[in-house]
Amino acid sequence: MNKTLNEIAAFLGGDVSGDGGVSIERIRGIDEAGAGDLTFVANPKYRKKLETTGASAILVAPSTVCAGKNLVIVADPYIALGRLLSLFHPEEEETAGISEHARIEAGADVSPEAVVYPGVHICRGARIERKAVLYPRVFIGRDAAVGEASILYPCVTVYRRCLIGRRVVLHAGVVVGSDGFGFARPGQENIKIPQVGYVQIDDDVEIGANTTIDRGALGRTWIQRGVKIDNLVQIAHNVVIGEYSVIVAQVGISGSTQLGKGVVVGGQAGLVGHIRLGDHVMVAARSGVHKDIPPLQVVAGTPHMPHREWLKLEACLPKLPEMRGTLAALKRRVAALEEKLEKGPS
Amino acid sequence: MNKTLNEIAAFLGGDVSGDGGVSIERIRGIDEAGAGDLTFVANPKYRKKLETTGASAILVAPSTVCAGKNLVIVADPYIALGRLLSLFHPEEEETAGISEHARIEAGADVSPEAVVYPGVHICRGARIERKAVLYPRVFIGRDAAVGEASILYPCVTVYRRCLIGRRVVLHAGVVVGSDGFGFARPGQENIKIPQVGYVQIDDDVEIGANTTIDRGALGRTWIQRGVKIDNLVQIAHNVVIGEYSVIVAQVGISGSTQLGKGVVVGGQAGLVGHIRLGDHVMVAARSGVHKDIPPLQVVAGTPHMPHREWLKLEACLPKLPEMRGTLAALKRRVAALEEKLEKGPS
Amino acid sequence: MNKTLNEIAAFLGGDVSGDGGVSIERIRGIDEAGAGDLTFVANPKYRKKLETTGASAILVAPSTVCAGKNLVIVADPYIALGRLLSLFHPEEEETAGISEHARIEAGADVSPEAVVYPGVHICRGARIERKAVLYPRVFIGRDAAVGEASILYPCVTVYRRCLIGRRVVLHAGVVVGSDGFGFARPGQENIKIPQVGYVQIDDDVEIGANTTIDRGALGRTWIQRGVKIDNLVQIAHNVVIGEYSVIVAQVGISGSTQLGKGVVVGGQAGLVGHIRLGDHVMVAARSGVHKDIPPLQVVAGTPHMPHREWLKLEACLPKLPEMRGTLAALKRRVAALEEKLEKGPS
Repeated sequence: MNKTLNEIAAFLGGDVSGDGGVSIERIRGIDEAGAGDLTFVANPKYRKKLETTGASAILVAPSTVCAGKNLVIVADPYIALGRLLSLFHPEEEETAGISEHARIEAGADVSPEAVVYPGVHICRGARIERKAVLYPRVFIGRDAAVGEASILYPCVTVYRRCLIGRRVVLHAGVVVGSDGFGFARPGQENIKIPQVGYVQIDDDVEIGANTTIDRGALGRTWIQRGVKIDNLVQIAHNVVIGEYSVIVAQVGISGSTQLGKGVVVGGQAGLVGHIRLGDHVMVAARSGVHKDIPPLQVVAGTPHMPHREWLKLEACLPKLPEMRGTLAALKRRVAALEEKLEKGPS
Repeated sequence: MNKTLNEIAAFLGGDVSGDGGVSIERIRGIDEAGAGDLTFVANPKYRKKLETTGASAILVAPSTVCAGKNLVIVADPYIALGRLLSLFHPEEEETAGISEHARIEAGADVSPEAVVYPGVHICRGARIERKAVLYPRVFIGRDAAVGEASILYPCVTVYRRCLIGRRVVLHAGVVVGSDGFGFARPGQENIKIPQVGYVQIDDDVEIGANTTIDRGALGRTWIQRGVKIDNLVQIAHNVVIGEYSVIVAQVGISGSTQLGKGVVVGGQAGLVGHIRLGDHVMVAARSGVHKDIPPLQVVAGTPHMPHREWLKLEACLPKLPEMRGTLAALKRRVAALEEKLEKGPS
Repeated sequence: MNKTLNEIAAFLGGDVSGDGGVSIERIRGIDEAGAGDLTFVANPKYRKKLETTGASAILVAPSTVCAGKNLVIVADPYIALGRLLSLFHPEEEETAGISEHARIEAGADVSPEAVVYPGVHICRGARIERKAVLYPRVFIGRDAAVGEASILYPCVTVYRRCLIGRRVVLHAGVVVGSDGFGFARPGQENIKIPQVGYVQIDDDVEIGANTTIDRGALGRTWIQRGVKIDNLVQIAHNVVIGEYSVIVAQVGISGSTQLGKGVVVGGQAGLVGHIRLGDHVMVAARSGVHKDIPPLQVVAGTPHMPHREWLKLEACLPKLPEMRGTLAALKRRVAALEEKLEKGPS
């Protein structure tokens, strides 16, 4: 691929500052970029590298100034980068076709336009729609469904009756529909409560490697349209994740908890069960959330609190030992004062 | 399936309050339930929904009052729910048989009454007992064993010489017997200590999706009878989990730590290595456990402490910035008092 | 295997104290060891068991005294244990050969000296070097490479263009090269930024079960020579882990963070993105690291702080409720003093 900076700016709807005739062959990170490369600055932390990068051109936000550099100025450099990457790195087309080395049980309904690799197993009653891609070792349980143009990477397991929408991406090792963790008299008899529900994953969801999503005990665990979930996340039975929410790696969400739309949960956070987070709540990484949160709040810490309070607490915490010393000293000084006053002026 | 409320009460050994002749077709959650549905209230949090549910009948604990509703009163509604679910959703029988597309090495001993799906791989010296079900992509290493009626879901890996008991359930992606993390001079040479032990999983254990259990360095890592482990849990080498213990999702237990019977560990908690937790200890979610805990204690927090202390600490923590301000102000006031007294009464 | 204590001491370059003629058949843990067994004490915590073990001999560090026991004294008993285990438990040789039941796409380059089990899938353009062992269900994406003598356990997935060095061990369920978590306007539109980079894993790396390593957004995610990573760890896009670093289970490292050489990160710790940890930094288990750390520092806590400060804080934390009471009482006493002084001596 080879484009001039002017062509790139036109494609992105941006403006060139500098030499629009320069030729771009590749897109690279700001540290690695050299002649023929276009790079970008989206995170302000890297703005200082603008002057030292060897890149032939840089994708920047408006108001970025850098004399002597070729710039493409766009409203949102990160989104523009995404569009350019799609241009420079088009997806390789998969050849449609169903491998003769896939195991498709009688009574499964697989579109002839689907891509089914060797080693896939599709159980009876399952439905695979057109342009879906099932990589080797994918398992689709009985009566489960995979919608149009969804991609299931190797070793994805979809248990019986779970429903995967359209344009869904499940990365390697994702488990959809394992039994929820329901045992009566825990620690004593551990009597299993059958988990007879299912998982519903709506269109345009992406789920990261080795993430696990348990089936509902009754009814469904529901991942709504446009949700993005990172790697190694645990979603328990009957959880609902609202549209366009984002769940970062290693988060755990306990049973029956419901997230509104556009909720963002930072990495390694944990949510107890049976609570509700309102639309557009933001939960900082590593927070422990133990009760309902109204819409639009930003919370952090364990126990979670408004983010502003957490920042103050975070600043104070290391001072606690010193505070303890101060407190003990003050106690002595007050006792001395009391004694002095008790005795009266000498 | 179609049962009257009287039939259901008789099956459960419970009592009907209201119309025992009402016909029940399905069991559903309290929000979704409508005509023909039976629902339940096990968690007191949902008791207020009793009056608004559209269910034809509700499974409740004794002393629950709800005028005008059809109730089935049982000692433990959650256990009763489990029994009813087994009645309304019987397990589909797997057809016994060993797929010709499974790879069974010479010298493996597989019961003809086992169910072995295509794509299973069983190494030499391994033993699979009757009624065991091995889903596609299960791997059984050399000299490993799987007991009667155990179910191994897709992509379960059992390394060499590991022993799985009877009626064990391993959900998709579980790894049993990977090498423990044993390296001498960590951060310098990282000299590997060969991990020559194994994992022993006793009868009636259930292990959640993508959980990992490392083999012993020497001897065994041991999961005792009736233990239930949730998804994405890490069990290190030579850990012992006592009978009927319950380990919630994303917990990590470090090497050689031993749990007594009936221990319950909440989600995302972490236990250091080489410690002992007594019988029936309860560890709250997200706790960091750093030393031995005597039997029957309930602990929480990082560092862990008795749960009652943790509740007090949790309530105080957000007050810390305010305390710091109070302390600074007091210090000034005490200094002023001291100065006043030093100078003597004016 | 059968060796006298003298032979073992000679093999290890150690000294015998006691009867060098005693015959050793097995190596076992200190609790289980009996006649014919050699055991070891590496962790000082177990030194008290020296006197009660039934082992025929014990591997110990210099200056260990234990009258009446047969000892082999070596500089580092843990390293010596590793060497002895390799002697007593030699690796079983895999028979070289490529299974006819593996799927090798045209245009893949697989050494005839590699070991490729049934059910392996190797895509076009991939290269597998001699003595590499690929267990069943391993997937090697397009143009990926696996170096000499590396071992990939079952259900390992290597995405397209990722590079695995020599003598690398990837345990079951490891995912190398899944898409990094890059979405513009998170919580609103979640616009995917194509992840067009790769993962590079250098020689002598070992990675634990079900760990996930995302591909670079641009360029590489890089795990350098000799690094050891435990189970269920999340490594985000464009992270760099320096040589011989050690990452314990369930750690999460966010995007573009760089670790120097010999860094040790304890279990369940979390590192934010875009920071640098200097050479030989140590991060305690469960720490939350939010900014750069200079070389050689030891940190702990959330937010992380020098380990010495954390120890003080950890000791103070449970005292916080008591401190709060003391502070309130002091406030009252100071107010009383102020009032007394205001009124003047009575």
